[in-house]
Amino acid sequence: MCRWLAYSGAPILLSEALYAPAHSLIDQSLHSRLGAETTNGDGFGVGWYGEPDTPGVFHSTAPAWNDENLHELADHVSSGHFFAHIRAAIGSAVQQTNCHPFRYGRWLWMHNGAIRDFAEVKRDLVLAVDPALYASIEGSTDSEVFFHLALSFGLEDHPPQAVARAVGLIEDVGGRNGVDHPIQMTVATTDGARVWAFRYSSERQSRSLFYSTDIPTLRALHPEVEILNEVSSDSKLIVSEPLRDLPGAWNEVPEASYGVLHGDDQALRPFRPQAPARRTSVSAAV
Amino acid sequence: MCRWLAYSGAPILLSEALYAPAHSLIDQSLHSRLGAETTNGDGFGVGWYGEPDTPGVFHSTAPAWNDENLHELADHVSSGHFFAHIRAAIGSAVQQTNCHPFRYGRWLWMHNGAIRDFAEVKRDLVLAVDPALYASIEGSTDSEVFFHLALSFGLEDHPPQAVARAVGLIEDVGGRNGVDHPIQMTVATTDGARVWAFRYSSERQSRSLFYSTDIPTLRALHPEVEILNEVSSDSKLIVSEPLRDLPGAWNEVPEASYGVLHGDDQALRPFRPQAPARRTSVSAAV
Amino acid sequence: MCRWLAYSGAPILLSEALYAPAHSLIDQSLHSRLGAETTNGDGFGVGWYGEPDTPGVFHSTAPAWNDENLHELADHVSSGHFFAHIRAAIGSAVQQTNCHPFRYGRWLWMHNGAIRDFAEVKRDLVLAVDPALYASIEGSTDSEVFFHLALSFGLEDHPPQAVARAVGLIEDVGGRNGVDHPIQMTVATTDGARVWAFRYSSERQSRSLFYSTDIPTLRALHPEVEILNEVSSDSKLIVSEPLRDLPGAWNEVPEASYGVLHGDDQALRPFRPQAPARRTSVSAAV
Amino acid sequence: MCRWLAYSGAPILLSEALYAPAHSLIDQSLHSRLGAETTNGDGFGVGWYGEPDTPGVFHSTAPAWNDENLHELADHVSSGHFFAHIRAAIGSAVQQTNCHPFRYGRWLWMHNGAIRDFAEVKRDLVLAVDPALYASIEGSTDSEVFFHLALSFGLEDHPPQAVARAVGLIEDVGGRNGVDHPIQMTVATTDGARVWAFRYSSERQSRSLFYSTDIPTLRALHPEVEILNEVSSDSKLIVSEPLRDLPGAWNEVPEASYGVLHGDDQALRPFRPQAPARRTSVSAAV
Repeated sequence: MCRWLAYSGAPILLSEALYAPAHSLIDQSLHSRLGAETTNGDGFGVGWYGEPDTPGVFHSTAPAWNDENLHELADHVSSGHFFAHIRAAIGSAVQQTNCHPFRYGRWLWMHNGAIRDFAEVKRDLVLAVDPALYASIEGSTDSEVFFHLALSFGLEDHPPQAVARAVGLIEDVGGRNGVDHPIQMTVATTDGARVWAFRYSSERQSRSLFYSTDIPTLRALHPEVEILNEVSSDSKLIVSEPLRDLPGAWNEVPEASYGVLHGDDQALRPFRPQAPARRTSVSAAV
Repeated sequence: MCRWLAYSGAPILLSEALYAPAHSLIDQSLHSRLGAETTNGDGFGVGWYGEPDTPGVFHSTAPAWNDENLHELADHVSSGHFFAHIRAAIGSAVQQTNCHPFRYGRWLWMHNGAIRDFAEVKRDLVLAVDPALYASIEGSTDSEVFFHLALSFGLEDHPPQAVARAVGLIEDVGGRNGVDHPIQMTVATTDGARVWAFRYSSERQSRSLFYSTDIPTLRALHPEVEILNEVSSDSKLIVSEPLRDLPGAWNEVPEASYGVLHGDDQALRPFRPQAPARRTSVSAAV
Repeated sequence: MCRWLAYSGAPILLSEALYAPAHSLIDQSLHSRLGAETTNGDGFGVGWYGEPDTPGVFHSTAPAWNDENLHELADHVSSGHFFAHIRAAIGSAVQQTNCHPFRYGRWLWMHNGAIRDFAEVKRDLVLAVDPALYASIEGSTDSEVFFHLALSFGLEDHPPQAVARAVGLIEDVGGRNGVDHPIQMTVATTDGARVWAFRYSSERQSRSLFYSTDIPTLRALHPEVEILNEVSSDSKLIVSEPLRDLPGAWNEVPEASYGVLHGDDQALRPFRPQAPARRTSVSAAV
Repeated sequence: MCRWLAYSGAPILLSEALYAPAHSLIDQSLHSRLGAETTNGDGFGVGWYGEPDTPGVFHSTAPAWNDENLHELADHVSSGHFFAHIRAAIGSAVQQTNCHPFRYGRWLWMHNGAIRDFAEVKRDLVLAVDPALYASIEGSTDSEVFFHLALSFGLEDHPPQAVARAVGLIEDVGGRNGVDHPIQMTVATTDGARVWAFRYSSERQSRSLFYSTDIPTLRALHPEVEILNEVSSDSKLIVSEPLRDLPGAWNEVPEASYGVLHGDDQALRPFRPQAPARRTSVSAAV
């Protein structure tokens, strides 16, 4: 399992979100409180948007807590929109191509959780990926296949629907292979402007997910916390677990729901997987 | 492209073959004379047989010339049967799961060359891998898919035939995708007792491959070369390029042929790919 | 801080000691119970004796729990005398030259603990290293400087006395620099035949250290534990923390004492640092 | 030996200098034409100035040609002042702390060449480093010790004089230890505003060093080369070897000279090492 963080707001040094908070993501790499694993030391990644069209990604197989290059990057790169992820591998190799966030064009994707019994269902799932996208799968994780399923189902046009179809397929294939609870997930994806975040699991006991209270409200609650005066009013964070113990600052995303960060739209909506109408033709042909 | 070495004979320290010769494999990692690339610095691997049932493998993404652990291993591990490989990546990631030799059960496999336009033909080839073997593909190279095709076609029972069928399929799929010269290869594979070595390319201009002259003959030719008195009479090497400039020591494997190291059988036989009887059903269904 | 293990006995696969036990060293890399840190993920090392004169060492900056090469090595290399160490870095870089065990000729050395305020006292300590040994310091840890101090003070001839002098110097230099409790340590060192293990700290609250009960006694206590019938009667382990919860199997090394594994001599003796007769001349000259 | 590049001018993506030119620094990592080694694959580093007070540095032990993170960084980070260095190790370990450029406060330093017989003279040189700077030596290279000698001799106040004194000391210590030609160097150092570049060797056969012709002159010479219209008129490069075969674009720095990039001052001046007035007191005391 893993931990992740998504930031959107005025540009800040990455280190403000990754290192500065008391229970920062870097701290969570050693001492996660709410994760399935307390240690998330099997690599990490960040993806950030700047002037170029596509986001930059930095992936490393070292534990986040001891990676000097991550520290340097975080201290010298600013962005108004970035993802960060720390990994606890569960089966697949510790290598850069297995580090989140994954990128496709302008899109980033990161995942905490698992497609269960992935070795058994991987072939069927990969067959359902659009053949034109197949060659862009570079690693061996369930999460990257999940991303490519979502892309195959139209992520770039209708993210919630594409994720619903991908999850529906994973549950369908899992079910046909006798897998209990085929998927466990919190997922974040972005096109560089909006962030979609999903919390769901087949057993309805999903990994933790929180979003930050809006800054003006927090400032009124905690006038003594200086950092709140420094960040922009529209700054938002979505995190696997709270970065600070600040009362009123964090709100749990409800079970089986999703939200989008975009302007003032912060509504949370129910997330329902969308099962395939029938067995996919490719699978049927096997 | 890459360079490789296969040794069979009385147990020796790996370093005797990897480091000691003037133009050793380690030297070739910096200064290959006959390779498609002069530098083979994108990782390496060794596989060796000892007391346990399965061979040990050591894979690293560092260049072989500067890897301290390889040096330590080579200076402290002896084996009578081992493979070594240095990699020059051509497209796929530099990661341990892409390092040769690949292992399946008691078998090892290594490859120099390429399945050309691999991104275009990869999906069709992977679909032809036995679904029961699919999950054991851990990396993203053409060479590992090639190994799994050979395994799917019976490598463990009839190695030459299985390799011929795998190459036949690769040429068939390549041809249908408009690829000129779909395969370029020297390949070595072993079950821990015998070594099969293949030299072939669709264009009949295959990468270099040499086998060593038998030791008694060499001793008669070069009574002054002490190392020849130290190695066992049945020691044999198959290499991408000669390790020393010793007249009479190295014999080129002819174009489009293969041989097997096993007891006194060192006959070289023609290698002819075996095309699929028809398009494979899975490919046809796509 | 760190965790370590020293084995001496009939040759076994390294994996028998490193991976097989319930609370193995590999498990401790993720979940140490008695260490100053629960996670020891900043690299590791093993050193083993075989046929060559000098021991082999394998050092990696990856966490031990996810290093495939360590797993391979441990499954394929046997030794009757080996050290293993997992690291939790406290200040110095995560790099192979900082991984224990350190080697000098036939000697290995590993350390759990710290020379406190090392940045302040490092120069004085390094100046006390024999100039002929100075160039063999390859990394930047306190532990390696400590090893070279012991070598400078005659480790190869009188290990307990050399370590006592090294610790005496460290406490002297620390004291003159205003350092509280200059040293915290458990140390193991070996020449390939005998193992010396030390437990000491300036504040007399030393890191945990245990040695195994002799095998015949353990067999009588636990006739149902099969592994005890498989290991040789003279097998001995010294460990930072017990590898199994087997009643009667582990004995704590007392505070401020040391022992030597050599034949039947398992006596524990008091360890007393030996202060320098006067300030060292080199330091005085600075 | 190594290769390096220093850029100063209007902010550009690092990739414009590192990857775009035909014979870019990345290409030189595989195929150096003028270096002592054709392959510079033992790690690399970049250092860049942006908004924060101190420069960012990115160091990797992977060959520059296959490092994905370097590619990402170069494609997404812009700077008007940066250094890049590719390493061919000659004796010291391949580890991040041995990668150039080295940093101290706002200063960066990189070096191509060697302090010869460094193992023999290292102790004497390190003793001459200001004790207050001693603890900031993190790696094991001659180049980093050289940097700390220059810092000890006032690099931050009078760079040419400090480097002259450092080189004078190195030649003096080398001479007393019987070293022929104690130093071989091209060096670049910067405070983020100015760049000083030095070319010197004890034997007066120094590694190659070139600086770029001013852009307006180049535009007049090559009106058809579009990139010249895109870069700012004050852009300057200092490089170990030319990045393109553009007639008139590159000027060799003369033997035993140095220059400074700062506004319009591009004068080249003779470089003369400044021998210590007498043996340094610390060395005398040893």
